[in-house]
Amino acid sequence: MKTSLTRRQALKAGTLAASAAFVNLPSLFARSSSYNAEFVSMTDEERAFYYFEGQEGVKARLFANENPFGPSEKAIAAITNSLKDSYMYPFDERAELQRKIAAYEGVSEDHILLGAGSTQLLMAAGVAFGMKGGEIVISHPTFDSLPKYAEGVGGKLVKIDVDNGLNQQLGKMADAVNAKTSLVYTVNPMNPTGTQVSGQEMRDFCNSISSKAPVFVDEAYIDYHPEGLTASTISCVQQGKNVIVCKTFSKVHGFAGLRVGYCVARPDLLAKMKPFSTGGFDLSRPAVLAATASVDDKAFLSMSVQQTEESKQLLYKGLKAVGASVIPSFTNFAMFPIDMNGSTFLSRMKEKGVLVRSWNFKNQDWCRVSIGRKDEMEAFNKALAQVV
Amino acid sequence: MKTSLTRRQALKAGTLAASAAFVNLPSLFARSSSYNAEFVSMTDEERAFYYFEGQEGVKARLFANENPFGPSEKAIAAITNSLKDSYMYPFDERAELQRKIAAYEGVSEDHILLGAGSTQLLMAAGVAFGMKGGEIVISHPTFDSLPKYAEGVGGKLVKIDVDNGLNQQLGKMADAVNAKTSLVYTVNPMNPTGTQVSGQEMRDFCNSISSKAPVFVDEAYIDYHPEGLTASTISCVQQGKNVIVCKTFSKVHGFAGLRVGYCVARPDLLAKMKPFSTGGFDLSRPAVLAATASVDDKAFLSMSVQQTEESKQLLYKGLKAVGASVIPSFTNFAMFPIDMNGSTFLSRMKEKGVLVRSWNFKNQDWCRVSIGRKDEMEAFNKALAQVV
Repeated sequence: MKTSLTRRQALKAGTLAASAAFVNLPSLFARSSSYNAEFVSMTDEERAFYYFEGQEGVKARLFANENPFGPSEKAIAAITNSLKDSYMYPFDERAELQRKIAAYEGVSEDHILLGAGSTQLLMAAGVAFGMKGGEIVISHPTFDSLPKYAEGVGGKLVKIDVDNGLNQQLGKMADAVNAKTSLVYTVNPMNPTGTQVSGQEMRDFCNSISSKAPVFVDEAYIDYHPEGLTASTISCVQQGKNVIVCKTFSKVHGFAGLRVGYCVARPDLLAKMKPFSTGGFDLSRPAVLAATASVDDKAFLSMSVQQTEESKQLLYKGLKAVGASVIPSFTNFAMFPIDMNGSTFLSRMKEKGVLVRSWNFKNQDWCRVSIGRKDEMEAFNKALAQVV
Repeated sequence: MKTSLTRRQALKAGTLAASAAFVNLPSLFARSSSYNAEFVSMTDEERAFYYFEGQEGVKARLFANENPFGPSEKAIAAITNSLKDSYMYPFDERAELQRKIAAYEGVSEDHILLGAGSTQLLMAAGVAFGMKGGEIVISHPTFDSLPKYAEGVGGKLVKIDVDNGLNQQLGKMADAVNAKTSLVYTVNPMNPTGTQVSGQEMRDFCNSISSKAPVFVDEAYIDYHPEGLTASTISCVQQGKNVIVCKTFSKVHGFAGLRVGYCVARPDLLAKMKPFSTGGFDLSRPAVLAATASVDDKAFLSMSVQQTEESKQLLYKGLKAVGASVIPSFTNFAMFPIDMNGSTFLSRMKEKGVLVRSWNFKNQDWCRVSIGRKDEMEAFNKALAQVV
């Protein structure tokens, strides 16, 4: 299997880039606002790039790993039924959600810390463990919210490159842990690469490392893991280990616009994060009620994973058709190498109404494409064939 | 005018308290969860106290300064119309809200920092200015989220008692500012006392003090100020002063359950808070769209203030009927002294289906009652007459 697009395709791309300005990027950049780009994953420039007036012309919104198969009808109904109560803080309702999540994860309520999306919690952990110059061991690349917040308060990042298959190198990460390490941050399955570590390997890693430093396992995409929830490290938390598991409703539940996430950990670990958290006071009533309706809706979750898998097979077909390498994906997105400058590629895809993201690491440009509806994957495949 | 309930009433209350357990508080306390009580205004115990299974039996929910006259129909319609898009992060929509708020406040977009409710922003400021042992000058009592977060990271609080009319003593606060002061925190109109400082006096205070330390003005209730929005210190921000103004949609807009707040300040001041903020990434799509529909809806805001005023007059009538002192209120709540232990008072009011809060300062117990619908104020008045 080829590892990237062909040289001919790359040359063709370069020629086109030199001959025409396909998208007027500066005018889009001008829309940039003071969104908190220093810390949140997407920069002002990137956000501006994805801005479409009224979303007109967008055929495939595949840049933010959103899940168009959610939220469930039950979740939407829970919101609709509660709108008249929007003037009330959801005190009791949030407590009920916390109870339900605790039951779902098999821990007591004091092991749960809620946040309006996991970004809130990644911030709290990044700050808590990055302060005082603590060293945070991470993969490179990785989902960069927690690392950015850690750096923002003086934390130092120790970056371990992914291997040639874009897998996290847990062994090398373990070797990097020393007395100055304040946190080890890992993501499984991994964003932005889409790769996975087996449940057993990750639990062994946590059990071994957590005696030296706390391990933060970001399981945003765990429902898409081939082992499903059995790949989770929640059992390490249940055993009282020095492990924080972070989960979100944004992915498999389709809640990106509703903002619900949570951490599962020993109360003494959560206590380190709480000075930088409102403990769920930031969750809206619609989000709380929707999450309560969705948290253990196994039929919906299974449908959500299945639909994603079907769209993923369509994507693989399109990638193979243009000779692109397929990095096996265990998430609701996939990464593949492109023989073209990332910005150029994004602009050309955008011209076709297809929004994706790009990375550059290992001296290679990469596209990350989210898994959307089938019509979106078809639009992506068609655009890709034209652009490369 | 009497300053508190009569001695006879107090004795009657004490006798009753000794003779009967009206509400089984321990069983209610058992409902307590790991809500982030160390920092957010209401403690676990208080939250548990206000828990009613399904809210059955509650005749008047007057403990959290919620506004039952909102959200507006436009705001609710904006949510309803967007539910199918709940799976998408509200990137562009949040930028649009930020633009609209900036226009409303007469500043540029880079002067706005969004948060999922002002508590998020009070946390960010408390942490940013409390770190490294900074001294925060505050009133006592005050709205205590920012002070609690500041203390959580080692900040020191310098507390200036309110005067006998429960007014902030700005002169004494000014005197307390010195080289160690990292922030002055003031609330206008004031929570929990309901008192106000004139716009001119507050602006003079800001203009004078802000050359020595940044001033954080919490204007959560500014729409209820007798001078209306002209009492705001936004003009100090517009003039480039060292002033941060914080506002929320939770009160006059009736958005407590939706979670939208924002700070208005020079970009360099907001930059100090951003390491502890997601810059609005925590706002849900329903909240963003509802706020965009509500932010400059002057007809609704005026109706909201007017309805509150009408209910407030009903409350005053009830307070006078039992001989309670009336501290003039310039918010959507009011405070009055009670000659009874606060917890006892709350429990007895709860027995009648009326939920309020209590404080103790200046060697006096106080009740804070929110202004709700007219039927709620009537239920409050009736319960009060029975309880005292």
